[in-house]
Amino acid sequence: MTAGPHTTHVRVRYAETDQQGVAHHAQYFVWMEAGRVAFLRDLGFPYDRVEAEGTMFPVVEASCRYMSPVRFEEEVEVETRCRSVRSRGVVFDYDFRVAGRLVATGSTSLVALGPDRRPVRIPEALARALDRGTL
Amino acid sequence: MTAGPHTTHVRVRYAETDQQGVAHHAQYFVWMEAGRVAFLRDLGFPYDRVEAEGTMFPVVEASCRYMSPVRFEEEVEVETRCRSVRSRGVVFDYDFRVAGRLVATGSTSLVALGPDRRPVRIPEALARALDRGTL
Amino acid sequence: MTAGPHTTHVRVRYAETDQQGVAHHAQYFVWMEAGRVAFLRDLGFPYDRVEAEGTMFPVVEASCRYMSPVRFEEEVEVETRCRSVRSRGVVFDYDFRVAGRLVATGSTSLVALGPDRRPVRIPEALARALDRGTL
Amino acid sequence: MTAGPHTTHVRVRYAETDQQGVAHHAQYFVWMEAGRVAFLRDLGFPYDRVEAEGTMFPVVEASCRYMSPVRFEEEVEVETRCRSVRSRGVVFDYDFRVAGRLVATGSTSLVALGPDRRPVRIPEALARALDRGTL
Repeated sequence: MTAGPHTTHVRVRYAETDQQGVAHHAQYFVWMEAGRVAFLRDLGFPYDRVEAEGTMFPVVEASCRYMSPVRFEEEVEVETRCRSVRSRGVVFDYDFRVAGRLVATGSTSLVALGPDRRPVRIPEALARALDRGTL
Repeated sequence: MTAGPHTTHVRVRYAETDQQGVAHHAQYFVWMEAGRVAFLRDLGFPYDRVEAEGTMFPVVEASCRYMSPVRFEEEVEVETRCRSVRSRGVVFDYDFRVAGRLVATGSTSLVALGPDRRPVRIPEALARALDRGTL
Repeated sequence: MTAGPHTTHVRVRYAETDQQGVAHHAQYFVWMEAGRVAFLRDLGFPYDRVEAEGTMFPVVEASCRYMSPVRFEEEVEVETRCRSVRSRGVVFDYDFRVAGRLVATGSTSLVALGPDRRPVRIPEALARALDRGTL
Repeated sequence: MTAGPHTTHVRVRYAETDQQGVAHHAQYFVWMEAGRVAFLRDLGFPYDRVEAEGTMFPVVEASCRYMSPVRFEEEVEVETRCRSVRSRGVVFDYDFRVAGRLVATGSTSLVALGPDRRPVRIPEALARALDRGTL
């Protein structure tokens, strides 16, 4: 994978809408996660394997700005970028687009924890790969 | 707890609605689970402890019939009954009511698994309690 | 589209897992919906348009049998078949497979409602298309 | 209702956990919504009625900081405060506590939209009530 943003797509499910007729705002955090997981997979570090090998990455901070609603059946492009990697944490930024138009932006901070949920260093190879993936 | 049905309440959350303006049908299975968990808790077998002690109860069959939609902010009464207990499995039935009116019914079958996900017998004391809770 | 089953794929999201380390059982109903919606889209009747044109299809009965758990990041093949079409209702069956292995089956019955939530006939062209899509 | 924070409680559902064995981070936004809705209900402005009367309040910004995980069956106290009310928008802050200990904080900004999703002024009586509810 070359450095730079990673793109994945989600299509808005009926179950993800609410009675305003648009995707519920909490759903975007699930889509950020889908984008992040696809990013890691394409980077060669599928997150299921990362966890199986003993490091989990809980989210410690998450935010989202919603500019335009998205609707059932719309295809949402999720662009995921690694903003920064430190020894024990990593920050991802996200842009959501529908038909090329920016509809929301988000950000999540994650930390590396061991199986006992104590902070650990991000595995070296993953840290390097994330760093290369950072613009 | 005396034998017989157990009652708990859930209030329909905004996130649980869909663009039809009613609670999404998949949500009822989450409410059945909430009813079942409350039933076990009141029976003296909180499910978090049951799992921590080594037995989990995955759902192997689930069904729901929807008679009338339920809406945001409505309070739904979930009546949970244990229909049958066998050595390795248990069946629960559910009635959903809003303001006394039956709006849906459901059923779930669960089996007992050990930490390795292999079938085990339901712990003796829990089986007896469930049996007493069965009409 | 030729007659016969329709296939779509979902990848298990992290948010869809529960503390048993497998996809939560309620999630399968969301996947059935995704399969059904993709089936309708490929049939030429995107469900967003069907609703916009005045007919909605709430689920009045749903069931699922779970044979094997599915895990985070696994790709689940959802095969959707229209079992029967009547004037006011339609039944879909579903098979879930992971790597070719059947892991769950499900079924949903839906009825056609007008904007006022009263029963209506399924739009003629859609009924015919569903009928052709039925084995 | 006297001025000041409003408190409601949610119990962590099994379906809300993920394979890390804790409540999924997206879920907290649903709990914020539950807190906000309960706040409005106790203030005399049930949100279902607010929407039925023609004003909806989509979330335009949301954030959460996670300090400690919360687990299945834990009771989470959600304290909701109205931080500011303007003519067209309102900001709520949230504290999440388990057994008195702060486990997360959050914030959401909402704007008032009319039925056509165009910005409108917050209904006068609601704005006054929120303002009284603000510390």
